[in-house]
Amino acid sequence: MMDLATQSTGTAGSLEPLFSPRSVAVVGASQDTKRIRGRLLRQLLDGGFAGPVYPVNPSSDLIQGLKAYPSVEALPEAVDLALIAVAAEQIMEVLAQCARRGVRAAAIFTAGANGVPLGQRLQDHVAAFARQSGMRILGPNAEGFIDTEGGLLATFSPTLIHVPPLPVGALPRRGRVSIVSQSGAMAFALYSRAMKDHVPIRHLVSTGNESDVELLEVVDHLVAQASSRVILLFVEGFRDPHRFAAVASRAADAGVALVVAKIGRSSAGQRAAVSHTAHLTGADTAYDAAFERYGVIRVDTPDEMLAIAAAISAGAYPKGKRVAIVTTSGGAGGWAADICEQAGLEVPEFAPEFKRRLGEIVPDYGSAENPVDVTARVVEDGGRTLLGILDLLDTAPGIDIGLVIMSLVASERITGIEPELAALHTKLARPLVFHSPGVAGAEALTALARVGGLQLGLPEFARAMRTLDEYRLFRDRWQQRRKTQAEPLVIPSNAPALTAGVLDAKTTRALLYAWKVPQPGERIVSGVEGAVEAAESVGWPVAIKIVSPDIAHKTEAGGVELGLQNAQEVRAASERILERVRSRMPDARIEGLQVQQMMPPGREMVVGVVRDPDFGPMVMLGLGGIYIEVLRDAVFALAPLTLDDAQGMIARLKGRAILDGVRGEPPADIGALAELLVSVSRLAAAHADDVAEIDLNPVLLYPAGRGAVAVDALVVAGAPAARESH
Amino acid sequence: MMDLATQSTGTAGSLEPLFSPRSVAVVGASQDTKRIRGRLLRQLLDGGFAGPVYPVNPSSDLIQGLKAYPSVEALPEAVDLALIAVAAEQIMEVLAQCARRGVRAAAIFTAGANGVPLGQRLQDHVAAFARQSGMRILGPNAEGFIDTEGGLLATFSPTLIHVPPLPVGALPRRGRVSIVSQSGAMAFALYSRAMKDHVPIRHLVSTGNESDVELLEVVDHLVAQASSRVILLFVEGFRDPHRFAAVASRAADAGVALVVAKIGRSSAGQRAAVSHTAHLTGADTAYDAAFERYGVIRVDTPDEMLAIAAAISAGAYPKGKRVAIVTTSGGAGGWAADICEQAGLEVPEFAPEFKRRLGEIVPDYGSAENPVDVTARVVEDGGRTLLGILDLLDTAPGIDIGLVIMSLVASERITGIEPELAALHTKLARPLVFHSPGVAGAEALTALARVGGLQLGLPEFARAMRTLDEYRLFRDRWQQRRKTQAEPLVIPSNAPALTAGVLDAKTTRALLYAWKVPQPGERIVSGVEGAVEAAESVGWPVAIKIVSPDIAHKTEAGGVELGLQNAQEVRAASERILERVRSRMPDARIEGLQVQQMMPPGREMVVGVVRDPDFGPMVMLGLGGIYIEVLRDAVFALAPLTLDDAQGMIARLKGRAILDGVRGEPPADIGALAELLVSVSRLAAAHADDVAEIDLNPVLLYPAGRGAVAVDALVVAGAPAARESH
Repeated sequence: MMDLATQSTGTAGSLEPLFSPRSVAVVGASQDTKRIRGRLLRQLLDGGFAGPVYPVNPSSDLIQGLKAYPSVEALPEAVDLALIAVAAEQIMEVLAQCARRGVRAAAIFTAGANGVPLGQRLQDHVAAFARQSGMRILGPNAEGFIDTEGGLLATFSPTLIHVPPLPVGALPRRGRVSIVSQSGAMAFALYSRAMKDHVPIRHLVSTGNESDVELLEVVDHLVAQASSRVILLFVEGFRDPHRFAAVASRAADAGVALVVAKIGRSSAGQRAAVSHTAHLTGADTAYDAAFERYGVIRVDTPDEMLAIAAAISAGAYPKGKRVAIVTTSGGAGGWAADICEQAGLEVPEFAPEFKRRLGEIVPDYGSAENPVDVTARVVEDGGRTLLGILDLLDTAPGIDIGLVIMSLVASERITGIEPELAALHTKLARPLVFHSPGVAGAEALTALARVGGLQLGLPEFARAMRTLDEYRLFRDRWQQRRKTQAEPLVIPSNAPALTAGVLDAKTTRALLYAWKVPQPGERIVSGVEGAVEAAESVGWPVAIKIVSPDIAHKTEAGGVELGLQNAQEVRAASERILERVRSRMPDARIEGLQVQQMMPPGREMVVGVVRDPDFGPMVMLGLGGIYIEVLRDAVFALAPLTLDDAQGMIARLKGRAILDGVRGEPPADIGALAELLVSVSRLAAAHADDVAEIDLNPVLLYPAGRGAVAVDALVVAGAPAARESH
Repeated sequence: MMDLATQSTGTAGSLEPLFSPRSVAVVGASQDTKRIRGRLLRQLLDGGFAGPVYPVNPSSDLIQGLKAYPSVEALPEAVDLALIAVAAEQIMEVLAQCARRGVRAAAIFTAGANGVPLGQRLQDHVAAFARQSGMRILGPNAEGFIDTEGGLLATFSPTLIHVPPLPVGALPRRGRVSIVSQSGAMAFALYSRAMKDHVPIRHLVSTGNESDVELLEVVDHLVAQASSRVILLFVEGFRDPHRFAAVASRAADAGVALVVAKIGRSSAGQRAAVSHTAHLTGADTAYDAAFERYGVIRVDTPDEMLAIAAAISAGAYPKGKRVAIVTTSGGAGGWAADICEQAGLEVPEFAPEFKRRLGEIVPDYGSAENPVDVTARVVEDGGRTLLGILDLLDTAPGIDIGLVIMSLVASERITGIEPELAALHTKLARPLVFHSPGVAGAEALTALARVGGLQLGLPEFARAMRTLDEYRLFRDRWQQRRKTQAEPLVIPSNAPALTAGVLDAKTTRALLYAWKVPQPGERIVSGVEGAVEAAESVGWPVAIKIVSPDIAHKTEAGGVELGLQNAQEVRAASERILERVRSRMPDARIEGLQVQQMMPPGREMVVGVVRDPDFGPMVMLGLGGIYIEVLRDAVFALAPLTLDDAQGMIARLKGRAILDGVRGEPPADIGALAELLVSVSRLAAAHADDVAEIDLNPVLLYPAGRGAVAVDALVVAGAPAARESH
């Protein structure tokens, strides 16, 4: 996971013969185009595939006008790709024939008897077969894949009948979008919705059960093809999450946005854990952290996904958050301003120069505030005034995005000025987005797509612009990260050896010390006199705690005394501790006394590490006490962190304003907290295979310049559990 | 504001002649239907208005086939309604003629020269005219109004050309929805979108500048007409907010939901205030509180508004939050479950009986978890299996709402079983909503509307169901409130007289005491010996504070001493106070010493009252300290509160879990806090005309059974500012 761009996706063969075959066999093809086996062949042929297509079915010599072959073995050439639509019990035999014949790739469409997904046993057979034969296999249970510009429609989905692909070269001003999905139905649903929005789909791949080819490998292949501006993903869970970092890195390098709908699993499966760090995490949190680190855009709704796709397709990349709203309806403009601000965009006041120039174009519009109501009149002179306004919007100072609200119920408002709009959109320096409060006419939307323009609903506009501005900032940070050589993660020589289980106090302390995690002064001594001496050296006041591998809850066992100010108190307290512990837990092995410097009061934070089975160690940060326990305000990030990542975590706390200093208090030492987070994260990453959990609670955070200290620490060591096979 | 249902909307004449005229004159009508004046007449005629229509224009004897009259005076009868579309400078003369002729109502469409809204001066003239003449006048600058079943289309909006109204009696299974809007463009935008969703619009009214007729009065009229199930409102601000309570109450009594898009104003206009209560409020907060009290549903986006309208129109009223998701795509079902839970719905496990019966219908579907993937097969047998599932969903135990996810790209899936679906929807006991992940075919949606069914997008479904479940709970509470006789708000005889400005300590204490707001024991004495005696009686320990009308910040003035445990300390502290104050503020008038019982530590809360110019006094509640100052976690509600309202406020605090008891602490005395809120609210409501602000900070809240106490109080008295005329 450390080695980003150079990590290959494995030793399997290329996906070329699967997604860019020169020749295709359809095994199980039939004449009846109302059934899956017939429709598969029909759509392949109608899609305009340029190479030879061979139906394979012993039932006939001629299928849909093509010479048919009785078996794979009988094929006249070793085709690149076999589309397999036979009964479940025949699949393995067909695959064996394919391997023998030299077929390089296969897609298995068969859903099984009665539309029930194929059982796990067949999936395992297919997986093993792929490994042994070297064939690349999509599915089983794939709904298919399409390459609309390669003329390859390898699917039985009836959606293509209702929503045929665009002709090659259509909508040249709209960038291409691809879809990779673990759900066949969702793949084609997103396709149908994108196409309705005039967002051209280039590739669509439904990965089915992923016995061999899985989603991340397909994404990597498409990113390398450089044929899509953005790839929409529908994910239930990565089969090979360890690939994620490399694939997402290459996409980030290439500037291909990945937009993902990640379906969460129920919380029922969360593991129990000894520290509250673990209680707060779940696989879904880890996906969020992984996405955040690699700039993968996670969406909550289909509308959000499609709006981002449309904005990217139209090239509407904002370089900031400031929106100018020009509207023919004051009411709609007001609503838009509210929605923009709710989404985190800004609707700033206009600069005087802008107001002046707007006044030249639209003399009687009244108030020149943002949003500016230019009235419906501006769209009723054949578009001349409107075009002047759009031109002006593109150069308005202090503005990043132009939103133009006007009714497109009457399509002529766009179609009537299509050439002028085309010219305008060619030279736009910043995103210009239309919004029609009423239902826009179909011709208006088509024309807008032709000219490279864009219409969006209001909350979709705001979310898309905010998201893309954040993505831009991610890309800046990413390019910085790529330039910066991260310090190599070498386990320091003074790091202790670790044994599985809860580490004892001494080992814990040594581990944190080796990784430069700040801790209070401390010594561990064997008896009362040693305690007095240690107290003198670590600094007053001190706390004394019993050291015993058999006592997890020291306070309950009577093993803790706090706030000791001098030698006499230390002596008395040490004696009391030993007496109480021996009395309450006579069988506990007493290894000594921990004499710890007591830190002054500070802002309590919680810092932890939990090791996610999919994405490895994650750092957790929370404001202590009530904030994390009751309000559950915690943020997570993949280890290791850069200082920038750590600052980002701190900024994401809901309660972060508390750290800015309240009620006359000075601001907290954010820099020290960030460094502590980085140190903990480096420990976690370097020890990914032998540290399972860390809980630093509390970390005391002092005012600026006075640092942060981990006052109490729990470390659980152990190797990762063996991964379940999917 | 106290007298809800009986409060009339004023002494103005009925709106009948305006919205249900028997005869109409179109003043300024012309032949050219491409211009506003021609289109207005044309749409009125095309709309099928049954009564006589008289064009008035000196330019011609015949306009659009009708005999035209040269002036209003020349009309053969005193029409009920005049639609006025003349030049701005002619309006007052036309109105005068109308009054003389006995015309009862008018709607002023004129936008003014060059499409610029008419100036304030004309609006004022029209307002005065309406008051004097008794005519009811809509506008100026109204985009018009329609009554689709009365055959009255009084608008020039071209939207009606693109989106003509439904024939009377169309879509009988869809309840009627009305629109009242302060923005003409938004009115017709919402109309066009609702109609696209097959949501039949009955009334639409655009109120323009509201010189006479304003939005709330129109709403009241429509509620009384009982012709709409739900009314959609687009509001910039109520012209007469004092009407709101009565109008909203009647709507709540009638079960007519009001769904409002309320446009916020910028925060620039917020008033400065002396207490931090006021810093946290703003007119928008008051609107929220008003809406919350009267069950008015506020929406953030157009999609949300339209989905709620569609759900109500389809009669999809949930009686709870538990959703059963039946899907033909596992992926889409998973995404739907996530979206439902994010919106606050529940997706519970299925009861065993349901799984058994489902297994009879769909034997091989695999896992019977919720969401249940019944696979695409169930929709491919002509609908028989699907219908069985839909039937089953309606009786599934522990379920309130059925969501059926299936692709409707192919419309036949619905049109093919339309009669069966119609029969099913007739007998449904609970909401059944379809969702098509891909773009649903137009015929499918039309057929669904015909049978009384409903298709929604995913987040819209979840928000609409959650909102309507909350509305149901509101209606239950509302009916309870109606039954319960609220204690009459009588100012107690022991309440002190109030003088404008910050009340002194004695008056403040007396006011709170009269209204049973719990306070610490306290006495105000004139000198040191009196202080000693008072301390004995109020209870140890005590705090002593200087009493002076000239000292706002007692601590800075040296006028506070805390934690005094005995008479000796009291004596010494009193002397020190007097010495320091005399030294630091020699000109301050010293009225005495306030000897106050010091309360033990408790959970700090903040309770306040601020008087909103539109809606009167509002109570504010927040968790004290950091929570309110930094996290701004505060809730507001209109005064007076019932105990139920107060409990509701407490429940709405973001940090309310803190009050449940954390870290081994017992839960807080919520009941006492609620009672304190009620007492403060009754004070505020009864003194609405002479108390401007109250700030109780802190209110200490103790564990259950040990009460709540207002430890410090600031009250500002004064009459409300005179209202600006709009």
